[in-house]
Order: sequence, then C-alpha cells, then structure tokens
Amino acid sequence: MNFCSMCGAAVIIQIPALDDRERYVCCSCDTIHYQNPKVIVGCIPVWDEHVLLCKRAIAPRPGYWTLPAGFMELGETLTEAARRETLEEAQARVEIQNLYVVINLPQVNQVYMMFRSRLQDLEYRAGSESTDVRLFTEDEIPWDNLAFSTIRYTLELYFQDRSRGQYPLHLGDILKEDNRFIFQSGPESS
Amino acid sequence: MNFCSMCGAAVIIQIPALDDRERYVCCSCDTIHYQNPKVIVGCIPVWDEHVLLCKRAIAPRPGYWTLPAGFMELGETLTEAARRETLEEAQARVEIQNLYVVINLPQVNQVYMMFRSRLQDLEYRAGSESTDVRLFTEDEIPWDNLAFSTIRYTLELYFQDRSRGQYPLHLGDILKEDNRFIFQSGPESS
Repeated sequence: MNFCSMCGAAVIIQIPALDDRERYVCCSCDTIHYQNPKVIVGCIPVWDEHVLLCKRAIAPRPGYWTLPAGFMELGETLTEAARRETLEEAQARVEIQNLYVVINLPQVNQVYMMFRSRLQDLEYRAGSESTDVRLFTEDEIPWDNLAFSTIRYTLELYFQDRSRGQYPLHLGDILKEDNRFIFQSGPESS
Repeated sequence: MNFCSMCGAAVIIQIPALDDRERYVCCSCDTIHYQNPKVIVGCIPVWDEHVLLCKRAIAPRPGYWTLPAGFMELGETLTEAARRETLEEAQARVEIQNLYVVINLPQVNQVYMMFRSRLQDLEYRAGSESTDVRLFTEDEIPWDNLAFSTIRYTLELYFQDRSRGQYPLHLGDILKEDNRFIFQSGPESS
C-alpha cells in the first residue's frame, strides 16, 4: 500500500494513538487503513461413497484437484458462500450440513472454513474455474495431485471420521516450516 | 474507495474479466481491489458459575457491557486473537476450550466467532478499552445493557447449554429487519 484510497495522498506506516501495532495511515486525511485476514469457505460435496473434486483451470495450482472453495464475499453468510463456490466451480447444488474444518493459515492471513455437504443431484459439470469435475471414492482420490495442503487435511479428516460415522468440528493451524507444511490440531471441539 | 492504494490513480467500479460482480478497479494500473468480510473473535471467560464481562470505554457502545472480542489481526490464529483480545480488554488470561458460536452478520460484512474459555486466575482488571471488568452469575448479567446483539445471543446460548452440561457449536445469522435484530440458527453441528 502506497496511497490513501480515500484522498489519494501518500500513506506512512505508524502506530496510531491508542493502538499497539503499525498500520498504514494517511499523511493528509489521517485515515487508518486496517488490514485483516480473509475467510476462504467451501464444502465437501458427498454422494454415497464419493466426494466431488474439481480440477483447477486457473492459478494458483492449475491442473491440480481441489474441493470447491473460495474467498467469502461482502454481503453473504458462510453457508451462502460455500453454496456459491460449489455452484461456480462445479455447477453443483449441495445441502450444507455441519461446519467441519476450520484451519488457520496465519502466514498467509487466511482462515479456511469447510462444511460437510450432500450433493443434491448428479447434474454437475466444470464451471469456468475448473477443467474437470469428478466423483472419487477414497481409493481414487488423487492424493499426489491435490492443489493445497488444506484440501489434503480436510479429506484425510473426512475419511477417518467416515469410518467412525461421526463428524466433529476440527480446528487447527497449518504452518510452513523448512518448506514443509505442518498441521497442528486443536483446540478440540466440545 | 476513491483512489488506487498502489499507484494513487482514480478507481472505477466495474466487473473485471472472468468475474461476476462489481469491484473497485484502478483506471491506470488495473489493480483489482477486492473487499471481503472481517472476522471478529473473542471468548466467554468462565470462572465457576461466573462469566467475565467488560464495560466498554470506547465507541461503539461505550458504557455497555460486552464479552472480550475484536477484529482478528494479520499473522495470528483464531485462538491467538481470542486470547489477545481478552488480555487487552480485561487483562485476563484464559485457557481456550472449544469454538462455540459462529454468527454471520452479512449486513455489516462480519463473521463473529466466540470460544468457550476458562479464566486462569482472578488477576483481571480493566484494559485501555474498558472502564470496568466484573464477574457475573447468570442472574446478575446486565441483559438490558449489553453492547451488541451477538453478545446477548452468545450468553443466552451459553446459559441454556450450561444447564445441560453440553456445549455444541452454534451457527447462525443475525439480520436486521425493521430496526430489530433477528437471529436465525443453523445449520446445526454434527
């Protein structure tokens, strides 16, 4: 950030009065430009023994497989965002079930929230951000070609829980250390 | 938003290529300025039969009581944010338990996330954003002087669940209709 989005003057980095961290502050109109983490929302669309995955058409990670998910938009709820992303990426309609995975990615300032969901019909097809959309059984999941570590952990947790028939909320953090992604779970759900 | 924060030129509102909604776009360097909901995180600090509340020193709603909560900052996790807000507002240390309430506020572009927590000691006192910090039993809660509808719903859910001894995750939306706040719960946790 170089300029104030309100008045166009230069911004400087300083700690505002009554604050304890550096912010971008306009040197002319004094507007403080707060920056905060963004929420990425999606779902696991389930049909019997299968999970629906999308092959990404766009960056980041084109050609790799993902669950439908994306940035929450202004004016919507988490479940509205999850349904919208599933419709956009897989042209699929889902019934949202429970909030299932919440993963912090503090190094990239994201909170990743995934719902369990039921695919309502088999009328899915690739949306504009996908080149392919397919149902996979656990054995068929392309584990080596998943787009993001969040997707891998979400799917691993899902198949573990499915064998028990219980789907508690999972919280955790993904941290990048020595070029590897480390998943730390906790706190547990009640 | 009037100016591009990258180059200082004017922004215009338009639908970018491959997008389906209006964004602020720079007319000079073409930067798209996405805007997304913000996360507010906090906790319910519990000590035996008591819950810790803070009397707000600052706008919005100075003089009204709240649970410790605030905007999640860059570089932190949800639980780090909940602990930081509790330390800042009540100078109190908590052990974070489960994620307990997630409320969408789509009309103000916020997602509000509250953890259940255990107060670790009684060394609390008003932080810079509070004029008073006190423990309240259920009967003592100042229901008519709570700062926000999110706080009221969180406390109502907490005391209902406490009588049952179970604290499942609660999801819901708060919508403002005819100048009243309506709480709609769902989907249920697993």
